[in-house]
Amino acid sequence: MLFTDEQIQKKIDLKTKPVGALGQLETLALQIARIQQTEKITINSPSMLIFAGDHGIAKHGISIAPSEVTTQMVQNFLYGGAAINCLSRTLGWHLNIIDCGILTQINHPELINQRLGDCTDDISCSPAMTLEQVETGFKYSESLIDKLHSKGCNTIGLGEMGIGNTSAAAGICAAILKKPASELVGKGTGINDEQLILKSNLIQKAIDRTDSQDAIEVLQNLGGFEIVQLVGAILAAANNKMLIIIDGFIVTSAALVALKLNPDIKQFLIFAHSSQEQAHKKVLKHLNVEALLDLNLRLGEGSGAALALPLLQSSVSFYNDMASLSDLGIEI
Amino acid sequence: MLFTDEQIQKKIDLKTKPVGALGQLETLALQIARIQQTEKITINSPSMLIFAGDHGIAKHGISIAPSEVTTQMVQNFLYGGAAINCLSRTLGWHLNIIDCGILTQINHPELINQRLGDCTDDISCSPAMTLEQVETGFKYSESLIDKLHSKGCNTIGLGEMGIGNTSAAAGICAAILKKPASELVGKGTGINDEQLILKSNLIQKAIDRTDSQDAIEVLQNLGGFEIVQLVGAILAAANNKMLIIIDGFIVTSAALVALKLNPDIKQFLIFAHSSQEQAHKKVLKHLNVEALLDLNLRLGEGSGAALALPLLQSSVSFYNDMASLSDLGIEI
Repeated sequence: MLFTDEQIQKKIDLKTKPVGALGQLETLALQIARIQQTEKITINSPSMLIFAGDHGIAKHGISIAPSEVTTQMVQNFLYGGAAINCLSRTLGWHLNIIDCGILTQINHPELINQRLGDCTDDISCSPAMTLEQVETGFKYSESLIDKLHSKGCNTIGLGEMGIGNTSAAAGICAAILKKPASELVGKGTGINDEQLILKSNLIQKAIDRTDSQDAIEVLQNLGGFEIVQLVGAILAAANNKMLIIIDGFIVTSAALVALKLNPDIKQFLIFAHSSQEQAHKKVLKHLNVEALLDLNLRLGEGSGAALALPLLQSSVSFYNDMASLSDLGIEI
Repeated sequence: MLFTDEQIQKKIDLKTKPVGALGQLETLALQIARIQQTEKITINSPSMLIFAGDHGIAKHGISIAPSEVTTQMVQNFLYGGAAINCLSRTLGWHLNIIDCGILTQINHPELINQRLGDCTDDISCSPAMTLEQVETGFKYSESLIDKLHSKGCNTIGLGEMGIGNTSAAAGICAAILKKPASELVGKGTGINDEQLILKSNLIQKAIDRTDSQDAIEVLQNLGGFEIVQLVGAILAAANNKMLIIIDGFIVTSAALVALKLNPDIKQFLIFAHSSQEQAHKKVLKHLNVEALLDLNLRLGEGSGAALALPLLQSSVSFYNDMASLSDLGIEI
């Protein structure tokens, strides 16, 4: 290791500011410098990846919208009209939309085809997918991430789209944390109390059927096509020592699985925001991590991850370019 | 009024997202659209203003650094080496440094001279300044803001530099909120417990001497040259219907005074962050406002205000450019 934590921290502490006064920007700078091990740290070609997939469980009407909306929103991403398009243009993200398996296939030159099927099976009565689909999903992600990395990208933001995917995420988190489903379900983007109870019961059935904490089994039984590929993307990006910006509850559930498969990847993860989905705060607490933003977002699409980029760029900027006390002729 | 709140909110609600899902970005968009009353809203020539001044009370050693550091840091701003320089370059702020009265005068073409003296008087035993100095400070700020506005700037960020100015800010807030000094003092950028007790006692003496809630009297008795000019800048910017991004505790104390002089200006204020200075959260609560960021910052210099700019730009972007449901052919 070229630079130890002590050396990096000393560089931060000698900047022209009181020790610690830049708060979480300092923590971020330390994390980035530790990973990159270079005198000057960088954010290169930040790439936002939106993984989309459909969920069999959605047919029970436990979301505010039917599964068809997944396809409509993917079309919106391709048309450039969604929130994540606006945020990406404003903040400087390269946007990548990945079809991991949505109900209606779309032919569009900018849509990345990594389909594992049309829709997962209904997890309340059968496994979401086969083990082979999980493995294929991992391979797809690895290939995509390696390609981005080879083009010079060192920072990815992860987002998702999939009607029903807070159910899959709640199931995954409940299984891994060994909690009842009721503690990890939430209103998603806005269902009513009756739908919430049904959602909780269906997820509990799915967990009871599975009864495993093995990460791959949990993914196969409870996952979504987009969640599987998110897990694969996290593992592959960590392998390339990239910065990985985690969005909300669904992406965090993928991070939870990835961490179970390989706890060492934690150093590469940056938790962008704490969403309004109540279970998100619980999982962040379980992981003992602090999110950067808390803006009452509950949209997904990588919107929270997108908003964290200027904070990373600000950390990089002060770490590289801020004067040290000795530059000002001040001895300490 | 061209656009009512209802019309603006409807435009936001018809975007391709669940109602409310963009959280505080939606609140910001509503605020900006209400102020600007245009179909497309904008952030033009965002300008960061750092007001610097020295404080007589600092001679008691109640800061982590002596008053000379104010001048050194102003030199650092002019040299481009401070945190706010890095953040401004990264995030796209035009940076303006204003000498409101620092111990040692600096000649530099980019330093804006609005000096009201070399240093305020020690507020623990006499008024900080004369009424004439307060009035001159207001005039200076008004002229500066009007000039920026005439050049097309519609958004300002406000920051400050001044060894000892958390003492002045604590005194101002304690006087206006009718609280004992002990409830509003904090460790600034990092003093010890003994210094904290001394700081609290000195500020209490200053408040007891003054015993007024009149905003101008409070400023004259307890203010700093930079705080007076911050108040003037807020009033002038509101008069020009500009967006005013408030930084940490000191700038918030100026906002408290400005709001006492004219409660109607509240609509123009955006509170960027909640700082580590404990009294800041109390004053934000008193004002019944929610800050955008909470990153454990305690630097000042406008650093928190600077970091809020991408959030405003993101709000503007989604409000102007995000597709509505009807664009996607979805009827509701």
